This record gives sequence, structure tokens and C-alpha cells, in this order.
Amino acid sequence: MKVLIDVSFLGTDFCGYQVQPNVRTVQGELNQALKKLFDFECDVVGCSRTDSGVHANQFFATVAKKGMNSIETEIPIDRIPSALSFYLPQDIAVKSAYAVNGDFHPRYDVKYKEYVYHVWNARERNPFLADRSWHYPRLLDVDAMAEAAEFFVGKYDFSAFMAANSSVKDTVRTVFEADVYKDGDEIIFRVRGDGFLYNMVRIMMGTLVYVGEKRISPQDIREIIASRDRSRAGVTAPPQGLFLNKVVY
Amino acid sequence: MKVLIDVSFLGTDFCGYQVQPNVRTVQGELNQALKKLFDFECDVVGCSRTDSGVHANQFFATVAKKGMNSIETEIPIDRIPSALSFYLPQDIAVKSAYAVNGDFHPRYDVKYKEYVYHVWNARERNPFLADRSWHYPRLLDVDAMAEAAEFFVGKYDFSAFMAANSSVKDTVRTVFEADVYKDGDEIIFRVRGDGFLYNMVRIMMGTLVYVGEKRISPQDIREIIASRDRSRAGVTAPPQGLFLNKVVY
Repeated sequence: MKVLIDVSFLGTDFCGYQVQPNVRTVQGELNQALKKLFDFECDVVGCSRTDSGVHANQFFATVAKKGMNSIETEIPIDRIPSALSFYLPQDIAVKSAYAVNGDFHPRYDVKYKEYVYHVWNARERNPFLADRSWHYPRLLDVDAMAEAAEFFVGKYDFSAFMAANSSVKDTVRTVFEADVYKDGDEIIFRVRGDGFLYNMVRIMMGTLVYVGEKRISPQDIREIIASRDRSRAGVTAPPQGLFLNKVVY
Repeated sequence: MKVLIDVSFLGTDFCGYQVQPNVRTVQGELNQALKKLFDFECDVVGCSRTDSGVHANQFFATVAKKGMNSIETEIPIDRIPSALSFYLPQDIAVKSAYAVNGDFHPRYDVKYKEYVYHVWNARERNPFLADRSWHYPRLLDVDAMAEAAEFFVGKYDFSAFMAANSSVKDTVRTVFEADVYKDGDEIIFRVRGDGFLYNMVRIMMGTLVYVGEKRISPQDIREIIASRDRSRAGVTAPPQGLFLNKVVY
């Protein structure tokens, strides 16, 4: 048995998920809290690598004893969330915990992931959303953006929407759902897929903003995908608007 | 003419609104930004004194040249919000600006103010609401709290709901509306009145939580008000759940 935990975190003060020397990371905090809780070192494997400043409403990680494929504990599984949250800082919470088989993999076994990206589209900034949205002061055409988002749905080589410095070889991904909607002065882009290339959602967002600005048309998304050329797509939207929203196995 | 500005701020990193030596305050930041914008010192008068950690979705302040009852500027009034926001930190924004008469007073001329208080009522904390709600892990009876809130409506001596160290003489206030409702795992208390005593909304909230815990009944609110005895009311709810939400002149 391994323990699968369902975590949420505010990414603002983290240098991303993955542990790195001398910086504060989500995985680093989980390692420390787990050691306090179980009194031994653990291996923590996350469902995704999130960048600095990116948030998670839902993020799964498996926990096993270091070097092992399993964990033994007398703490009942339903007490683990509160017990572990107790040792974690305020910007991470453990919402639930489940027992899974030793061969379960939180990244490879994902059926789909959903991201949401929040844009604050008003002239003046919103102090409550400074670290959790992209402030875009010029009014965007949300209908055009919504029309454009539909062109992301399908199985494509998404190279045009991958950070230029990424070395991933297989750049084909399937997007199951993609939509854009308005909630007051916020514009929300929601995208669901079997996997995402490095910076893919942020580049999609940057490109949708070009559509909202009428610099390109919704139909141009099709050609940008087909071009497989990063320079044809829009800017990489800033990290603080991005939330890993849902992960389904 | 004075300038009336409509401000919002995230209270987390402020020692309240009012300027004090050696600490970061909203008024202090406004003073500095106004000096940069106008190139002279200004007097800033706010609509309310908010405590450390308390937020404002809407907060009004008048701006005049220091020692004067008016201000002269060539900046068009509708450009002031963006121009001033430029010199302000990310946790304050100026949403609008209006020209008002020299005798307008942002505190004395208030018709009513509305506060909202957010409780995160789920076993596990929410990292996104850590600095903007009261995490109350035990499930509260929201219907009973809603029933209790109605007893706050009316013109009463609210001494029982005033911080014990307050020296205010006239403790009669009129509450026009008060309700409690649920939004997912959040419980929101909304109260509108002609004015509020020191810590009044936070003590109301603490008392409503007693009702939600069934330690007292909704009807007990009536007796607690009548007692004018602070020790009969509930705890003072923590500051970070409180938002000044609306100010109407």
C-alpha cells in the first residue's frame, strides 16, 4: 500500500512543486511534514511539475517509505489529512488521503487533467487577485476567445504551444474540452486534456488574448497548431493566473 | 473641490488603515503615492478605521492639499485612479475618483456601511482563504445563524458587541440588514448599518458562531443585546475574515 494524498496549495511563495536545493517548494514542505508525522523519511511522487507561482486546487502525490514501494503506519487513512496539515504551512492543505496499490503512479496513471487560467480584465487592478490572476487592463472580446478555444479540442501536435527550451520528444496531446467564460470582470479559460507540454496552458492563454484583442481571428488557432511553430503563437501568460484544477485517474 | 477616492485593499500586510509611526498602513501608502503624483503633501481622510488584517472591497477617502480644504490639479479626475494606482503597491487599488465639495466628510456623511465576514467551514483549511477567512473546522448550523442574524436588525444600544477597551460614549447604532448564507463551504455574514462600534462586526460573528454551535439559541441574541454586557456575547472573530464591503453616502 502507498498513500495517495489530494493536496491544494497557493503557489505564490513556492518555487514550484519539485524539490530543489535552497528554495521553498511544495514537495520540500511535504517531505518535512511527512517526516514529522511518520518519524521516517518518505518518497513523495507528484502528479505534475508546476512552475513557480502556479497554484493547485487539486494536486495528487503518492507517499511511500523512502526507497520502498509501500508504507506502514498505524494512523488511520482518514486521519492523515488533518494530521499532515498540522505539520504543513498555511499555504498547503491536504484535503483527502486514499490507500492505493504499490504500482499506482500519480503521473502516468492520469486519465485527464484540468487547468483553469484567470484573467482580471478591468482597467484598475484587483488587490485580492494580484497573486492569483493576470491583470489585463484592455477589454477583451470574450466571445471571440470562447470561439477560439474550441479549436484546441482534438488530438494534435501542440509544438507551437510548448516552451522553446523544452526537450520533450512526443509533442502530441489530446485536448478533450476547452472553453472561455466570463465571471464579472474575470475571464476564465478552462482546458482538460490527457497531458500538457511545458507552458502549454500559459501559451494557449497568451494566444487567446491575441484573439480577444482581435490581433488574430479564432480560426487562426487552427493554423497556429498546424504550423508547429512556437513563434506563431502568443506570449506565455504569467504563472500566477494558472491553477491545476482537477486530476482524474 | 476635494477628491474622493474609492479604494480597495487586501489588509493582510497592513497594520490597519490609519497612519502610525514605523508600520505599514493604507493611509501611509496613500500619503506617499499622492505626494509622488501631485508633488505636494496631502491630507487624506478615510471613511473608517480598519484594524490590522481587515480588508476593504470599498473604502472612501478624501484628498486635499495639506492644511487646506481643497486641491488644485491639472490631472483630469477620471485619470486619477490609474495615475495614483501606478504609485501604489499591489495590495491597494484606486477604483474611481470623484470631485466633492470642500465640506464633504467621508466619515460623518456616510448613510450606511456594509461589512461581510467570511468563515471557511470545512474540516481541512483552504490555502487560498488563509488570509481572507476564519477557518472554523466544526460544522455550523447555518439556518440557526441566519435566524439569529435577524435579531441584530433595529436601533439598539450595542454595548454588548463593543470591545471592552473602547471609550465611545454613544453606543446606539441602527442595523438595517443582517443575514447569513452559505456559498459552498463558506459561510458569509453580511451586515449593513449606520455605523459600527469598535469590533462590533467581529463580536457579532463570534456570537453567531455560538449559535451555529448550538451553545446558545437564535433568540438569545435579543437578550444579549438587552444585557449591554460584553461578557454575554461571543468571542471576537479574527480580523482576516472581515471585509468592509460597501459605503454609501
